[in-house]
Amino acid sequence: MSDKSLLPILITMGDACGIGPEIIAKAFMAADADGCLVVGDVAVMRRAVRCVGSLAGVAQVQAPRDACTVPPRVMPVLEPAGLERGVGEATFGRIDARAARAAATCIDAAVRLCRGGDAAALVTAPIHKEAWHAAGIAFPGHTEMLQSLAADAGPLPPVRMMLANPELRTVLVTIHVALRQAIEMISSERVLETLQITHREALGRSGRSPRIAVAGLNPHAGEGGLFGDEEIRHIAPAIEAARAQGIDASGPYPPDTVFMRARHAVGHPGAFDVVVAMTHDHGLIPIKYLGVEQGVNVTLGLPFVRTSPDHGTAFDIAGTGRADPRSLVAAIRMARQLVAPA
Amino acid sequence: MSDKSLLPILITMGDACGIGPEIIAKAFMAADADGCLVVGDVAVMRRAVRCVGSLAGVAQVQAPRDACTVPPRVMPVLEPAGLERGVGEATFGRIDARAARAAATCIDAAVRLCRGGDAAALVTAPIHKEAWHAAGIAFPGHTEMLQSLAADAGPLPPVRMMLANPELRTVLVTIHVALRQAIEMISSERVLETLQITHREALGRSGRSPRIAVAGLNPHAGEGGLFGDEEIRHIAPAIEAARAQGIDASGPYPPDTVFMRARHAVGHPGAFDVVVAMTHDHGLIPIKYLGVEQGVNVTLGLPFVRTSPDHGTAFDIAGTGRADPRSLVAAIRMARQLVAPA
Repeated sequence: MSDKSLLPILITMGDACGIGPEIIAKAFMAADADGCLVVGDVAVMRRAVRCVGSLAGVAQVQAPRDACTVPPRVMPVLEPAGLERGVGEATFGRIDARAARAAATCIDAAVRLCRGGDAAALVTAPIHKEAWHAAGIAFPGHTEMLQSLAADAGPLPPVRMMLANPELRTVLVTIHVALRQAIEMISSERVLETLQITHREALGRSGRSPRIAVAGLNPHAGEGGLFGDEEIRHIAPAIEAARAQGIDASGPYPPDTVFMRARHAVGHPGAFDVVVAMTHDHGLIPIKYLGVEQGVNVTLGLPFVRTSPDHGTAFDIAGTGRADPRSLVAAIRMARQLVAPA
Repeated sequence: MSDKSLLPILITMGDACGIGPEIIAKAFMAADADGCLVVGDVAVMRRAVRCVGSLAGVAQVQAPRDACTVPPRVMPVLEPAGLERGVGEATFGRIDARAARAAATCIDAAVRLCRGGDAAALVTAPIHKEAWHAAGIAFPGHTEMLQSLAADAGPLPPVRMMLANPELRTVLVTIHVALRQAIEMISSERVLETLQITHREALGRSGRSPRIAVAGLNPHAGEGGLFGDEEIRHIAPAIEAARAQGIDASGPYPPDTVFMRARHAVGHPGAFDVVVAMTHDHGLIPIKYLGVEQGVNVTLGLPFVRTSPDHGTAFDIAGTGRADPRSLVAAIRMARQLVAPA
């Protein structure tokens, strides 16, 4: 564990036509990315540095262990073998298959370094899904590619999305499906699997069992079956099974008050470490309510730590230097925390 | 309008065995209920005053217009005809059919005064639903009784629940039903009716059209039909129909960001005046996230203004003087605002 915290955290550059490279440059400029190593294209990162100004420079390194040898405020960049050439000339804000392929190559290389024990964690700058589609990349997005790379030709590992900000963490049982379908997907197996993944991962390798609150699906968590029975049929049995396995899970709690109870703020210590939510919006409404700048996305269930900012490539402002790096910085901080918890 | 703001705001005492009377006494003690008149039992309110201490006293008045003649910090109380006797001796924290009947008599009388033009608005202290049931009162709760009293033997007026705190207002299309059933209940008629009621009532009689944001049902508001089609089939047509009637409605917006956008806070002027939410928890999660002390419940659609605190009778602490009056005070403030908007 202490070894791991000395390894660099890898940041993949993302789509070179989006804001990824420039928010990475801003993070280095503000010393928020100390101890990080960019897996990317040197020309792309040089362009990003020019775009935001005032950073000392970019230093190409040959191996992760060399990242710590570069001077402060200099961004170490490792170029993976086989990287698509010429991406540093791709137009900002336009879909470009070369940029898509380069982004995928960087992710592939970064995962290999994490899995090989050469890096502590992975932070991914945004990719552009349409560009991936245009480039014929088989994965719809990061998560599916990471699952595949983690699978070693075996079955895909089950993963869950955790959203976190400094006040609240929430893990989602269902994500990008119609609400009707999300309800159909709720089973005690799926909820239990979420609790197991959350227990194993949410507080990282701290050794302390996270206090997991489970939100119900229905108003008032069903009020004893009066307003729906998913709590009785699926959620409560999953909590019971999880507790029998030593997982500190409780609930199901009424969705409208559990997030308030879990919120960690000055003078308001949260009653739980993480809330498991049944639907995308039950979890994301409270995460986003106070602002999206500090939101971080964490993929739980992979054999390495992976975080990402909670926004996309923002093609409309890419290359202007105006992009806000706060969510990326929060993602770096979260990765550090998950690798070596306080 | 200016006339109405000179009339007293009525506060019904609620269940005498709960915290209603004592939070009313606290509100008067702190001068937060100036211009209000309690519709209740004088003995009950005297007991509540003793329970919280230090108020000058209780003055029985015969008519609403006499409320303004009592000295500061004295609570004017109007006893309705036919009030159940002996309720002042009912045990705190116990279900008592006499207390239930007295609470109902007060509500009935207060509605008559509001509808007769003798009062500006109605604020209701909490009743106890099981006590009402035990007393054989036909209504499950306040809302149904108020609808019935407003119906004049005709059809019940459609009402909607609005939840408000100083940062956010949200009106719910569906409330206490299973989430599956809530989805079935979403129709363009129901959404349009909600928009009409919200438009008419949400900002009171200010004359300005409220900017109504409509939240979708599905993640990302369905992402163009990819994750559910309720937005396309029901919600968007209702918004279009409402706009054709001059209602300033827009959306459907992704549920996870619309509340953040509507939030009114220092340095963060909300983009909307009110959010229409499809489900109980989409609306209540953000309302409660920062704390429940200032939450207010408003019934929209009645022929008079009605607000209430966002909590129940709290039998466990009734009579101890420990109950927190902030939600009641917020309800009084909201009633004032709806009667005579700034």
